[in-house]
Order: sequence, then structure tokens, then C-alpha cells
Amino acid sequence: MNPRLAGIAPSLIRAINARKREGDIDLGLGEPTLRPDVAPFEAALELVRREGLPYTPNAGLTELREAIARYHAYPGLGAAASVCVTIGSEEALYLALKTVLDPARDEVLIVEPCYLAYPKLCALEGIRHRAAALDAADGFRPSAARVLEALGPDTRMIVINSPANPTGRVWPAAELRTLAEGLAERPETIYVLSDEVYRELYYEDEHPASIAEFHPHALVAGSLSKSNALTGLRLGWLMGATQVIGEATKVHQLVNTAASTQSNHVALEIFRRPESLAAHRPLYARQRALLLESLQRHGLEHAPVEGAFYCFVRLPPHLAADSLAAAERLLDEHRVVTVPGIAFGAAGEGWLRLSWVATAEALTTGIERIAEFCAARG
Amino acid sequence: MNPRLAGIAPSLIRAINARKREGDIDLGLGEPTLRPDVAPFEAALELVRREGLPYTPNAGLTELREAIARYHAYPGLGAAASVCVTIGSEEALYLALKTVLDPARDEVLIVEPCYLAYPKLCALEGIRHRAAALDAADGFRPSAARVLEALGPDTRMIVINSPANPTGRVWPAAELRTLAEGLAERPETIYVLSDEVYRELYYEDEHPASIAEFHPHALVAGSLSKSNALTGLRLGWLMGATQVIGEATKVHQLVNTAASTQSNHVALEIFRRPESLAAHRPLYARQRALLLESLQRHGLEHAPVEGAFYCFVRLPPHLAADSLAAAERLLDEHRVVTVPGIAFGAAGEGWLRLSWVATAEALTTGIERIAEFCAARG
Repeated sequence: MNPRLAGIAPSLIRAINARKREGDIDLGLGEPTLRPDVAPFEAALELVRREGLPYTPNAGLTELREAIARYHAYPGLGAAASVCVTIGSEEALYLALKTVLDPARDEVLIVEPCYLAYPKLCALEGIRHRAAALDAADGFRPSAARVLEALGPDTRMIVINSPANPTGRVWPAAELRTLAEGLAERPETIYVLSDEVYRELYYEDEHPASIAEFHPHALVAGSLSKSNALTGLRLGWLMGATQVIGEATKVHQLVNTAASTQSNHVALEIFRRPESLAAHRPLYARQRALLLESLQRHGLEHAPVEGAFYCFVRLPPHLAADSLAAAERLLDEHRVVTVPGIAFGAAGEGWLRLSWVATAEALTTGIERIAEFCAARG
Repeated sequence: MNPRLAGIAPSLIRAINARKREGDIDLGLGEPTLRPDVAPFEAALELVRREGLPYTPNAGLTELREAIARYHAYPGLGAAASVCVTIGSEEALYLALKTVLDPARDEVLIVEPCYLAYPKLCALEGIRHRAAALDAADGFRPSAARVLEALGPDTRMIVINSPANPTGRVWPAAELRTLAEGLAERPETIYVLSDEVYRELYYEDEHPASIAEFHPHALVAGSLSKSNALTGLRLGWLMGATQVIGEATKVHQLVNTAASTQSNHVALEIFRRPESLAAHRPLYARQRALLLESLQRHGLEHAPVEGAFYCFVRLPPHLAADSLAAAERLLDEHRVVTVPGIAFGAAGEGWLRLSWVATAEALTTGIERIAEFCAARG
């Protein structure tokens, strides 16, 4: 057997979910509960009727790749050849790590707290990785300085996520520019893998900035899973310099051949009306307002909720040393599913992640119970 | 960059296709030209209307996994836990190699001529591999003896493909039993990865036998791509012992999360009427009869066409030293696309692969032109 597999720990999120009982309030979810628009699926069915279901090109339908590049409008990444269509953003992360790094020499720096697939994918590929922890005392504010300080001589990739899971923080343009400037001073190429799967879920006036606007060695992972409530579509993309995307497509072809042709067509329909990528945002904005009001009423401390559909809540001192035990007690005794912060790396210890895609009633009741749990001693 | 990628040669099939002009006869295709049944897609659309499109479990819908296990009825592989639903059989091959082998020690033995993804996937994963060549003089008859003779001290996996691409040969049950008996005598576990993507395309009375009927360490890759003309569905499976499938699912989860939920539902509809997996076989049988008649009329020598939709044709002595040059001349001068045998490993040199999924007229005209080309000297 592959010895690397033994070193990959099972998911804490899964362990928590296994304890869940009928009737529990689930604030642990990582996928939208909204329903997707059916019209793009009807159009895709028409195409199956007319043309059957042949393979797309390995990197996806050219028209879709063009539409994705045009929609993002990142400098230097405007051509179809800058895009490989993937099995969700998950495969895009895998392709980026697998393509540009030499496992024998290179190291990855992962900004924590983070989605734990990043270090696990590194472990699967035998790639060394270290964490650059954001400051809990500062609400996990994205900080170029903290990342640049953590660079080592072998660092060849930095992984960032904006808007971020689990913190809900968004990297400001100024921090991204500072990060790019710091990297430009280094003699070696350092890629920044930017996980932008929550890109459409922001609550300020403007789209979150992307490192791809400032850094020539950006690799961007995205998908329609969160913006359009289409996690089951398994349709994402990796964007980057054409030479890197060409090599990544070799890996993609060998591992998966191509993404689903139907999913390609559904995605193309969506990108033909790009406003549909924003269709769910007002609903999330209303739910976020409810969340913030509820957190404030109960005096729960949390990181600023700038994007995505998560809120990172600070545990009180008597619970902060063991977020897993806290999440388990909260579930067993108060019947609310959350995810312990430790599931997102050591930097997340002492916090809980709530997702706020549940119904309004479940959300307010859940927060009430969390507040009771945090207030009770012993 | 990952140094392994530089060592993976671009596809010869792609190089040939790049020379193709409008009006050329294409006998190079690796996918069916038939249209799939639309009914399963209509049912899957209904589900999107009712339930949206959430993730399936990582290993696929449990009901689908059960249906796949039940349909194959391989000894010891009857439970849902014996099946991981994958992105076509391609990902199943990747998962098998990635999961059970230790790249630092183990070696793979690949039966040639073969689908070249097998050695390329090994190269991608840094896994040593060698070829066990079947005998061209014997029409590439599958032979347990040749495989067992080729085993080395580090061999931990054998890759076979039945019905085979490119030869069209089928492993007889007796040979598979002999192979399993030989492996049972070895002190170490040797997995057999059995690529059964053409399993439903056979032209004798009975289903081709599977190594999974005889060998306890079989890993079976399959899909609906060829049987149901659904290459774009990207829905396949890896079957094996539950412990191996559990580990393979860890890899699958990290690389792709899960296969398309819609594709899971389409596949489930198909397995609910398992006779639909055989629906295209009579059409292929008629086309095969036409092929064999045409080959005989022109006196073209070929391997017995026992399964799949390929025919491996022997080049005459004056062309046999360079099948790539022959395929290029055939295309440039006679306007027929084929695939040079060398694209399937050294054992395939001196042969051409035709696929016979084109229209009857294209097939007979194409074979006529191949015969002219082979007969002409200089």
C-alpha cells in the first residue's frame, strides 16, 4: 500500500457528523442549502438530445474556458488557454500542487486557519508544507507581513483563500499588493495558489480583490459550487499562465480525462448570463444580517464576517483549549452541529466554525444554544 | 515544476488527429458514435428540480454502488463498500495505482500492446513499470504464461485489459484461472488491475470472464462510457476489497471530492434496467460482421476481433518497421485516420489500430483504401 495514505488523518468534520442525531440543528454544513436554477439543466438536456454526450476536449469546452477567462478578467489570464476546467475547485487545487512543485525540493506555505484539504493534498503528494498562521487576536486579519515573514528558502508556493473558510475574512487589495511586492523582490519564482471558491459571496460593495491582479505567478482555483448552489455539478477551473495550464492539463487528462460534458454545458449556460453568478448573494446578505444581529444579542465574539457563509466564533477561556471537546459537548448536550477550529489547523484552536446556510429559525436557535453553552461553567 | 511531467510524452493519437483534414475517413476514434438513451437524463433532471444538486457521498450514491456490485456479482465484491464511483474508468486506474503501490519499492507489470495511460500514470506517480508483451505471431493471444514469466521480485501489480484496446482480444476464463493460480503460489500479494471498460462489447455467447472471479486481489475498473455511448458522463467505478476501496476513496475525496451528482443519477437509472447496458451490442455485432467481411475481401491480416470496437491490422513487411510513418502516409495520401501500433507500446509496432464505430460506408471505404495502401510498394 501507498505509505502516504496512512499519514492522512480522517476528517474531524466527518467525525462530528457521525455523532449527529435526528432533530439536531446543523450549523456544520459546507454546502449551500438553496436550490439551483433549473434552466441551465434544461438547456443541457436539449444538447444531450441533439448531440449525445461525447467527451469535451480534455481542458473543457473552449467556449466555456473563454467565458471563464473573460468573466474574471485577470491580467494576462484572458485566453481560453489560461483555463483548465476541473472536477470542482478541489481538483484545481490538486492540479496546481501536482504541476508546479518538485516534491523532492519545494515547500508550500499554507495560510492558516485553512481548509484542511491543502495540507492533506500536500501529504498525498509527498510535498513538504508549513503553516503561516494569521493572528487570532486580530480576528485572523489577512496579513501580507505575516506570510512574507514565514517564507523559507525552499518555499515555492503560498496557498491563500479569499473569502476564507473558516474565518470569513477577505484579503484586502492593499494586503495582496504588498504580498505581490514582497514576492517580486525574491530571486526565485513563488507561486500563489488562490482558492477563490467563495469569490461571489461577499457583502461589501465590490468583488474581493485577487492576487492574480498583482502577481504574475498566480494560480486561481474556482467553481460554481458555492455561488450557484451546485456542489454536485463538480465543475470548477484552474486559471494560470498558459504554459502552467498546459502542463496541468496533462495531469488532468491522465487522472480524469475531462469533466462531465453535461456539467460543462450547464456551466456555459450560467456564464452566458454572468449575473446569475450573483443571484444568491442578496439571500446570503439577509441571512448574514440575521446572523450578526443574533451574535451581537448574545455577546458572542467572532471574526469579522466579510465573505463566504461561515462565521468563526471564539470560545470562552474555559473551553478554548480543546475546540473538539467543545464541539462534541455542544452537539451532545445542546444538539447543535458546528466544526471545531482545530479542524482548520493549529491556528484555529479555541474557535468554532458555524455555517449560516441553515434556515433562519435554525440559525437563531442554534446561536442561542451556543451562547448558553459558552456562558455555562463546568 | 514537477520533473515527472517532462517525461510524459504527448499522445501520438493526438499528433495524428492534428493532421486530419475535412473529409478524411476517421477510423481513429476511441469513442462510440451511437447516441445514448435520453430517458435516464430526463429522470436525472426531475431530481434536480425536486432536490437541487448536493454532493453525493464521496464514494458515490450508496444505491448506485450497490447496483454496480450486484450487477457484476464478483465473488467477495458484492457490497456497496466494494465500489468507489469515479470520474470514468480513467480515475479508477489512477486510484488503483495510487492506492495499493509504494512508489519507493513496487513495480507494475503492464500487458502490451496496451492503452498508453497505464505507463503514463505510472510515470506521473513515479512508479516503476515494465511491459509483458503478448505474441504478435499469435495474434496477441492473452497468455498467462507470458505474464507469469515476466514477473519480477518487486512486481506488486499486473495491469490487464479485457476486451483489449487496441487488439480486440478477450482473456479466456482458462487463461485467467491459470494466471490466478500462478499468483496464488507467490508468497507476496500481487494485485491484478483489470480494465473492463469494454466489458459489454463482446461477440461470443457469454460475458467475458474477469480475473475477479479467480483472484482475491483483483481491482476492477469499469464505466458506462463505451457500453452506453456515454463518454461525456465521466462516470466509472473501481471495485475491490473493501479495505482497498476505503483507502482509494481517501485519494478520490482529496483529488475530486466526488463524481457529478447528475452522472450518479443517470448511472443509477441505467443500472435499474441492467439490460440497457447491452442495448448497443447488436449494432456493434452487425458492424463487426461488415468489418470482418471487408477485411477478408481485401486479404488484410488482423488479430481476432473478439471484443471492444477495435481491430488490430498487421502492416505488410515493407511498412512494418515504422507504424507511425505508415499511419501518417495513410492519412496524408489516402485520407484515412488510424492509430499506429507503436502508440500502444513497443509490442504494437508493425500494426495499425482501426476503430469500427464509423458509418458502414466510411468503414468499407476506409478498409478499401488501407488495402490499396498496403498493396502498393514504395
